[in-house]
Amino acid sequence: MGSEKGPDRKIAEGPAGYVLEDVPHLTDYIPDLPTFPNPLQNNPAYSVVKQYFVNEDDTVPQKIVVQKDSPRGTHFRRAGPRQRVYFESDDVHACIVTCGGLCPGLNTVIREIVCGLSHMYGVNKIIGVQAGYKGFYARNTVTMTPKSVNDIHKRGGTILGTSRGGHDTIKIVDSIEDRGINQVYIIGGDGTQKGASAIFEEVRRRGLPVAVVGIPKTIDNDIAVIDKSFGFDTAVEEAQRAINAAHVEAQSAENGIGVVKLMGRHSGFIAMYATLASRDVDCCLIPESPFYLEGRGGLFEYIDKRLKENGHMVIVVAEGAGQDLIAESEKENEKEDASGNKLLMDVGLWLSQKIKDHFARKQNMAINLKYIDPTYMIRAIPSIASDNVYCTLLAHSAIHGAMAGYTGFTVGLVNGRHTYIPFYRVTESRNKVVITDRMWARLLSSTNQPSFLSPKDIEEAKKANSMVSL
Amino acid sequence: MGSEKGPDRKIAEGPAGYVLEDVPHLTDYIPDLPTFPNPLQNNPAYSVVKQYFVNEDDTVPQKIVVQKDSPRGTHFRRAGPRQRVYFESDDVHACIVTCGGLCPGLNTVIREIVCGLSHMYGVNKIIGVQAGYKGFYARNTVTMTPKSVNDIHKRGGTILGTSRGGHDTIKIVDSIEDRGINQVYIIGGDGTQKGASAIFEEVRRRGLPVAVVGIPKTIDNDIAVIDKSFGFDTAVEEAQRAINAAHVEAQSAENGIGVVKLMGRHSGFIAMYATLASRDVDCCLIPESPFYLEGRGGLFEYIDKRLKENGHMVIVVAEGAGQDLIAESEKENEKEDASGNKLLMDVGLWLSQKIKDHFARKQNMAINLKYIDPTYMIRAIPSIASDNVYCTLLAHSAIHGAMAGYTGFTVGLVNGRHTYIPFYRVTESRNKVVITDRMWARLLSSTNQPSFLSPKDIEEAKKANSMVSL
Amino acid sequence: MGSEKGPDRKIAEGPAGYVLEDVPHLTDYIPDLPTFPNPLQNNPAYSVVKQYFVNEDDTVPQKIVVQKDSPRGTHFRRAGPRQRVYFESDDVHACIVTCGGLCPGLNTVIREIVCGLSHMYGVNKIIGVQAGYKGFYARNTVTMTPKSVNDIHKRGGTILGTSRGGHDTIKIVDSIEDRGINQVYIIGGDGTQKGASAIFEEVRRRGLPVAVVGIPKTIDNDIAVIDKSFGFDTAVEEAQRAINAAHVEAQSAENGIGVVKLMGRHSGFIAMYATLASRDVDCCLIPESPFYLEGRGGLFEYIDKRLKENGHMVIVVAEGAGQDLIAESEKENEKEDASGNKLLMDVGLWLSQKIKDHFARKQNMAINLKYIDPTYMIRAIPSIASDNVYCTLLAHSAIHGAMAGYTGFTVGLVNGRHTYIPFYRVTESRNKVVITDRMWARLLSSTNQPSFLSPKDIEEAKKANSMVSL
Amino acid sequence: MGSEKGPDRKIAEGPAGYVLEDVPHLTDYIPDLPTFPNPLQNNPAYSVVKQYFVNEDDTVPQKIVVQKDSPRGTHFRRAGPRQRVYFESDDVHACIVTCGGLCPGLNTVIREIVCGLSHMYGVNKIIGVQAGYKGFYARNTVTMTPKSVNDIHKRGGTILGTSRGGHDTIKIVDSIEDRGINQVYIIGGDGTQKGASAIFEEVRRRGLPVAVVGIPKTIDNDIAVIDKSFGFDTAVEEAQRAINAAHVEAQSAENGIGVVKLMGRHSGFIAMYATLASRDVDCCLIPESPFYLEGRGGLFEYIDKRLKENGHMVIVVAEGAGQDLIAESEKENEKEDASGNKLLMDVGLWLSQKIKDHFARKQNMAINLKYIDPTYMIRAIPSIASDNVYCTLLAHSAIHGAMAGYTGFTVGLVNGRHTYIPFYRVTESRNKVVITDRMWARLLSSTNQPSFLSPKDIEEAKKANSMVSL
Repeated sequence: MGSEKGPDRKIAEGPAGYVLEDVPHLTDYIPDLPTFPNPLQNNPAYSVVKQYFVNEDDTVPQKIVVQKDSPRGTHFRRAGPRQRVYFESDDVHACIVTCGGLCPGLNTVIREIVCGLSHMYGVNKIIGVQAGYKGFYARNTVTMTPKSVNDIHKRGGTILGTSRGGHDTIKIVDSIEDRGINQVYIIGGDGTQKGASAIFEEVRRRGLPVAVVGIPKTIDNDIAVIDKSFGFDTAVEEAQRAINAAHVEAQSAENGIGVVKLMGRHSGFIAMYATLASRDVDCCLIPESPFYLEGRGGLFEYIDKRLKENGHMVIVVAEGAGQDLIAESEKENEKEDASGNKLLMDVGLWLSQKIKDHFARKQNMAINLKYIDPTYMIRAIPSIASDNVYCTLLAHSAIHGAMAGYTGFTVGLVNGRHTYIPFYRVTESRNKVVITDRMWARLLSSTNQPSFLSPKDIEEAKKANSMVSL
Repeated sequence: MGSEKGPDRKIAEGPAGYVLEDVPHLTDYIPDLPTFPNPLQNNPAYSVVKQYFVNEDDTVPQKIVVQKDSPRGTHFRRAGPRQRVYFESDDVHACIVTCGGLCPGLNTVIREIVCGLSHMYGVNKIIGVQAGYKGFYARNTVTMTPKSVNDIHKRGGTILGTSRGGHDTIKIVDSIEDRGINQVYIIGGDGTQKGASAIFEEVRRRGLPVAVVGIPKTIDNDIAVIDKSFGFDTAVEEAQRAINAAHVEAQSAENGIGVVKLMGRHSGFIAMYATLASRDVDCCLIPESPFYLEGRGGLFEYIDKRLKENGHMVIVVAEGAGQDLIAESEKENEKEDASGNKLLMDVGLWLSQKIKDHFARKQNMAINLKYIDPTYMIRAIPSIASDNVYCTLLAHSAIHGAMAGYTGFTVGLVNGRHTYIPFYRVTESRNKVVITDRMWARLLSSTNQPSFLSPKDIEEAKKANSMVSL
Repeated sequence: MGSEKGPDRKIAEGPAGYVLEDVPHLTDYIPDLPTFPNPLQNNPAYSVVKQYFVNEDDTVPQKIVVQKDSPRGTHFRRAGPRQRVYFESDDVHACIVTCGGLCPGLNTVIREIVCGLSHMYGVNKIIGVQAGYKGFYARNTVTMTPKSVNDIHKRGGTILGTSRGGHDTIKIVDSIEDRGINQVYIIGGDGTQKGASAIFEEVRRRGLPVAVVGIPKTIDNDIAVIDKSFGFDTAVEEAQRAINAAHVEAQSAENGIGVVKLMGRHSGFIAMYATLASRDVDCCLIPESPFYLEGRGGLFEYIDKRLKENGHMVIVVAEGAGQDLIAESEKENEKEDASGNKLLMDVGLWLSQKIKDHFARKQNMAINLKYIDPTYMIRAIPSIASDNVYCTLLAHSAIHGAMAGYTGFTVGLVNGRHTYIPFYRVTESRNKVVITDRMWARLLSSTNQPSFLSPKDIEEAKKANSMVSL
Repeated sequence: MGSEKGPDRKIAEGPAGYVLEDVPHLTDYIPDLPTFPNPLQNNPAYSVVKQYFVNEDDTVPQKIVVQKDSPRGTHFRRAGPRQRVYFESDDVHACIVTCGGLCPGLNTVIREIVCGLSHMYGVNKIIGVQAGYKGFYARNTVTMTPKSVNDIHKRGGTILGTSRGGHDTIKIVDSIEDRGINQVYIIGGDGTQKGASAIFEEVRRRGLPVAVVGIPKTIDNDIAVIDKSFGFDTAVEEAQRAINAAHVEAQSAENGIGVVKLMGRHSGFIAMYATLASRDVDCCLIPESPFYLEGRGGLFEYIDKRLKENGHMVIVVAEGAGQDLIAESEKENEKEDASGNKLLMDVGLWLSQKIKDHFARKQNMAINLKYIDPTYMIRAIPSIASDNVYCTLLAHSAIHGAMAGYTGFTVGLVNGRHTYIPFYRVTESRNKVVITDRMWARLLSSTNQPSFLSPKDIEEAKKANSMVSL
């Protein structure tokens, strides 16, 4: 999926190094679309607003740590309502789909797309596509109204259901065309956004007046460009509960070790922030920072040391951490007994077993290891209030953009401002914890764990990345 | 307090309208202070960091919704560690004081000043001033170590105690001088920051090599310039509990009305965000938006309407809302019975009584009003994880600034970046909900409440403010 | 309401001082009612049960602290399904009504009457009476099915709505007769149970084959005979939150005093248990234990002492405490200014003002008093798991009793066993904290507060009550 | 451990079939012990108490569902303070030890033994034995005071640490004798109570004036005779969180199955009560009720059916459920690959794998199974308020008993009254869910799950047990 040659990019430049990475617009390929006055003007709630609409030229810089004469760099188009819209309210037929794993706030986003379209723009044809992408062609849709979604933000999960995969661009766009849908809201992670991009490309190829909008969702917070993904704060909050439990278990036992696995396939943000917020964690392992078990400076040595000093310790491990080590030890296993136990691919179980084995070999020190995997308990809770408001603003930004004729974009918070970002910017790369950044140093300082890095690792890490510290 | 002529301002300009509002530095008035290499360089946790230190020229723009050729505007100095520091670790004698009302996160800020100074800079003389400003001269101090503050972030309140007032600049600076304190960390609201400014002015007048640093604290989120004050997200989260209760009480009664008073003497941020996050609120009243009770378009009319439509309603009122109305009705009372009942100055009790009186006069409609004031239950809880991390970064920013010789500043998050802001910028004005902004319109749209504004009010409001919408 | 001559009592006696206080049965006044086999026999879920039915003769003793030859005393009829029932499933037309204030668990009781009747007995005509007693004649009813009540136990309040008063026996029984209702489930406090008793008397007078069943509800736990009322544990749990907040506020201030008002008009159970569970409370005031403010051994003296020792204190006051003192001080007020301020009747506000006044008179000691009234936040929450299960069993006991033809009774837990209790036993007297009991001594010992009792008070208290300690 | 011939039993009989199963007393083997007046008499908190002391003859019946002429049956001695005590306050040297797994409320029990001994009896020599039984001889003890335990009830776990095993009767009693300890408080499960019994036997054999008291602890609630073990309500409450998450995950997926493992090695009380309280569970599997996977009436068939009807389901499984099935399937595995994977012994992982395998074989139905194991998150939380008060009363009962010279007993709630129970009664058998009881039928009725029982199973179950339904 995705066009072979890659997406067309709309880049505009300005003085002093100003660059705008713009998003597609329906008029890019349907030049003569009629426009209409924005119905918000007649909305009593908006009667007090000074400026109904954002300035068409408003943009938001990606880089805001600047020097007095530094170039201005990349900007994104600011989100918000426009003076003129490209859909008449009665003609809008919107659909919403949620894909991938659960994340706190999904139902709020769904609710606010429905309520926002209805209350702000008078739209009343909104359907929900069930169970992810495949729902476009394999299942019935459900009609959605402000009344039917009224209380859903208080529940975890997604009322539409979700699934992974099932993306068949042609079938999906056929379904969109057949049903007469002209606004497609797609909530999902980077795979989903790639799918949304492919849908947009196909819609454009067919010349359909359909706005395709992505709302990025990842509990791991690993979407590029944007400040933070919705549900992340909720996840970090809920993770405290597991860390607290691990701490109590570890403290109450002799040589107690509490191991908590947190989400994060490719990035360790939840693990890092949960560790920083808790301060009861002695070691945090993330995918971005390689580590090793045996020998000088290794994890086992550190565990020995902490147990001797403190009598107990807590380890937080992101699910994607140490995958190279696991792969290696699995290979050995295969050589030995060809069992290929899939369960061991869980880094939490794997690490727990390795630590137990290590101390079983050291006969003078019995440990008590307790392993906690709160993943599904974290994913399934309703969002906290701050995420709730954040989801609302994301949904409204998405609506304003679609109504204004923008398409092929994802909404996103950039430096605290809501913007429209071309799909390729959020699917080309992934946000990662930068281990040469002060935030990670802060974590190391707070846990007192070693960096597990060789001088060569450090050198490479420093070369690899040039993101700016907070 | 504060110097008569107002503080000296350090303004630097650059190309394309670039302005830096800089903060004072000890060398402004003690030119020959020696400097030392930053001990962070030798901190193992920081060994992986690519850039130990922020660029001395790094600044952060205040305005980041820009057009391609708009002027660059005001910037603040970026927070973070500097290559050279103006204190030797062994010579630092730091003190911490908390003033004003409680706010979730206070103990985290205290903890992280202590742990940050100790772990990052090797400082080991840190004392706590008890019970607010007056503690400088009226009470004993307490010695603080990483061990003594280890678990305090899990508790609400402030372990140092706090009080209002008690600011006597001369006595405080005498005490600072007598004790040999050279870093003063002052955590408090805008009154407290004015006091901090006066302390700084007096310290400078005496030519003392003492860094005076403010960490702004206000649960109301009404501090100018900064994105958000610590504890605010926690407060909004906890407020949901009261709103939920009010909603249940209202729903379970005939013509049930739930009234919830939330914090906000001068600004309605907590009320507004709590309302947006909850969606069970039918009316939100804030200090910034005048309202009236009787007559067409008034609150009573709206209550009548909602009860008829829905059978119940929830009203959220910020503590500073409607003070003009209360003052007026109090005056009438005075004329009548000279009782001067102070209790009625509580807007929640006052409003509840007014509503009851209104429906008592209307004999055909009995109501059930339940009033909830969760103020002290909100203020006293420990901070949620996201506020916890935020407090950590604020404390670290404060430390880095003081060690680098900056003084007379407050730390603050500006567009998601930590900065140093001159005191006058956070004490000259107050952050307020802008009722001509789209955020307030969004609230009106979500509650369906009338704006309670006359055309004249709208006109004035539009004139009064030119802040940019999110 | 209630018959003039008082209810007929069904008392049976046995050997060794055995007494059974039995409940009425439909056949008491309709001798020839047909019976049917209990449909539970065919319920697959009950196929494994050894004894489908309770023994008709099973009873439960009220007094179970016994000596080897003590008389057996009063017993109540054991609740549970009987071999034969007096209603055919298809003929049952049940109604449910909730009266009085909110209490955690109301919705669970409603849900389980509906689900129990439906799943256990195949009943499918169940209606809800809205908004309390007056709903019988003034409002429409709602049809209730297992589906419509499926999730209500997760919500606070009562989906049926509730109100106080509105009891018009004749109109209610007219309505019952007109609608063909033959099982009436009435959930409410002691006033409500008196009303239920009157309905039962009138139903009996008219000779209607209608079972009238009470489920006692009081968050205060002051219903006589029964072990504990539903929602009580939830209320005590939730009260911890307010006490914690009061403790944090008090600790963080100079001479900080936290005052928490808890429910309990006539009895101090919530206050006492919340105090015992918390251990942060320095003084607990309840209706059963008189106290005085001024002078030797009075409350003010104790506050002085605690503040001097500890610097802060927490006071928990039940809403019915000190009403005699308030009445007295109000009278004085009347003499002075004739204002008759109703607000002061709130013991929390009144006590807070008195304490403030006291310390205002003592000019050498400024205090910081924070008053918290969490009443509506406690009442409105959903029940905790243990209350949830308890509510289920109460509802099932009620159903089994009604189906078995019992009427004019309330269900209740006696010494951990579910029983049927005649109305008069729960309405004639009220459960109270016995201040000459070891539980109250335990509280005094835990708070270290004085007993506030004169030797005469103690003498009287000892005479007044002869209940057995736990 | 335990004497070969079994413990001596103190049985007293009375009229009408009255039996008292009494507990040992120091004077059983040290006849001339001096006695002292109970210091509670001089405790101001107890000055209001009518009866300082329980009647020496007070007992509590085990069976309280009675008929008018049924025999009186077994009774236990009522707990509480006695007029005379067998220790002088200054001579008491008490020790406390916690053994086995964590359980909410442990710290409250510890706290209240310390505070109760100190405040009620003026005892000031109290030590804590660290890390379970082995701490008697392998580790240092800690001095405990009311101040040192003041806040521990707000924390989960046990401040003393705990461990399994390590019971060496001789070494332990040597240590008791060497240290001059004369009151031993042992908190732990049935293995621990057996150990306590052995310690008591050895103490008696040596003729030491040492009271040995057990406080029964099991989160599983499987201790015989007593109503409920402390921490159980807290565990059921916390389990709701996991069940809710499983429900949300299941609902949001296609053919979603949520599997939650809860504690319960030998008994399914937590699983049963958590299921009843939640009502979102479709199937509850416990050790007491055998089940099978394949074929008619098996689990797989039921899952198929629920998924077809509802699209999702939630399964709760107690950790000890299905152990026979696992053993069987493990044996097959062994034949195949001799790997002996210990992980599969976890019934939750095993069952999840079996269900996945089943649906992998059925190629037309993809499922989404999410497995949650909240065990350590449940065990480690602080107790809820009701458990907190319960722990307090248990601790006080233990103290009163020891001071009164009773020994070799465990404290326990019997029909809501605190009693002293001989060790053998709580170690000889285990409390179990009775699947022929109406409570289990109620569960089956609430989940709609099949009983998984063959007629033969039912017959056997009915024969096996004759406990009375609630």
